[in-house]
Amino acid sequence: MVTDPQQACFEAGIKFGSLYHQFAGTPVSPDSAPSLERAMAEAIENQPFCASVSVDIDADALADAADDNGYVELTGRFMQVEMRIEYESVVVRTAMEMEDGYPLMRLVAVE
Amino acid sequence: MVTDPQQACFEAGIKFGSLYHQFAGTPVSPDSAPSLERAMAEAIENQPFCASVSVDIDADALADAADDNGYVELTGRFMQVEMRIEYESVVVRTAMEMEDGYPLMRLVAVE
Amino acid sequence: MVTDPQQACFEAGIKFGSLYHQFAGTPVSPDSAPSLERAMAEAIENQPFCASVSVDIDADALADAADDNGYVELTGRFMQVEMRIEYESVVVRTAMEMEDGYPLMRLVAVE
Amino acid sequence: MVTDPQQACFEAGIKFGSLYHQFAGTPVSPDSAPSLERAMAEAIENQPFCASVSVDIDADALADAADDNGYVELTGRFMQVEMRIEYESVVVRTAMEMEDGYPLMRLVAVE
Repeated sequence: MVTDPQQACFEAGIKFGSLYHQFAGTPVSPDSAPSLERAMAEAIENQPFCASVSVDIDADALADAADDNGYVELTGRFMQVEMRIEYESVVVRTAMEMEDGYPLMRLVAVE
Repeated sequence: MVTDPQQACFEAGIKFGSLYHQFAGTPVSPDSAPSLERAMAEAIENQPFCASVSVDIDADALADAADDNGYVELTGRFMQVEMRIEYESVVVRTAMEMEDGYPLMRLVAVE
Repeated sequence: MVTDPQQACFEAGIKFGSLYHQFAGTPVSPDSAPSLERAMAEAIENQPFCASVSVDIDADALADAADDNGYVELTGRFMQVEMRIEYESVVVRTAMEMEDGYPLMRLVAVE
Repeated sequence: MVTDPQQACFEAGIKFGSLYHQFAGTPVSPDSAPSLERAMAEAIENQPFCASVSVDIDADALADAADDNGYVELTGRFMQVEMRIEYESVVVRTAMEMEDGYPLMRLVAVE
């Protein structure tokens, strides 16, 4: 009733929603961005079928948006994310990038 | 390269991960469970392609687990969730339930 | 070493930080704002020494900021919060409001 | 109406509530604990008046509690936190530790 590629895509979606809603709102500055990138990636890689995660927070965009205290709350506009999900023999690659001013989570490939 | 059913399953996963990691950790008691159930459902129903969400928090389990202050932090062991995702002509039904002591998010049907 | 008014102010701060970082990022629209307001207030009122919480989400500001899907992620710019903390014989009143474009959590009175 | 020590204690509480409710629920394993400890500390140190934060996640407790996938969701029972808040001429030291089976946030000293 549910195929392996469908299940793999479901798993990929879970990881994206988890990453976004766990960490959105975190206070982040250019100096603290590298530790947050790493923690986000390693946290989500713990989840089942999650082969790899990379998180790239845009330090220049943070600096532009920072308030007088030098930081912002993390939202999708400040980061790019890529993930590789492996479920049975299926590999799913996903990405989150800005599109028309909004962060868009998308399936890049199901192989 | 990506089929409509695969995209629908990806969207379903996003909603589940979002719901779980947005609201896990919320202080909840038997008295406050109904307002939290409703807010969780209505929040996630805002997301694209999310036709309906139901959240059922187990008030008896909360009462058993509550500390001296009468509340617990919400985790998957206290709730059952069902969602219906509609993407193009595809309908995906999903559920979160306890299995072997752990909350399991699963695809119930892809139609 | 720590006075009751100081302890009461510490407790007040905990509630504000909890409310903000638990619920920031929640998808919210003018239609779903009332259920979220209520759930936020009732959740934090579970915490010790928290006598009352009111949350007012600005539906007009949500409507102005909403994307094509009709919702935004909750941040401080969309809400006003008031709390009353009671610790021993001390009453602390606090508020979160916008000031110079940023949400500011402040002590209104320690009595 | 509000003294500097009271304001300092309020700020200390905000940081504790923020740290706890931003990061509770994060998937964490013995291997990923160090990156999460660092990210939590650096994130909260961005906030105003927050001079230093240390987070110590108990890897042995994680290993004992981990499910078949090797990880748990972060809660207060797995971590010890210390913070130093500086507001005007006041220094506040705070700690979160387990007490009677529950994580307790407390004021250690107001100086």
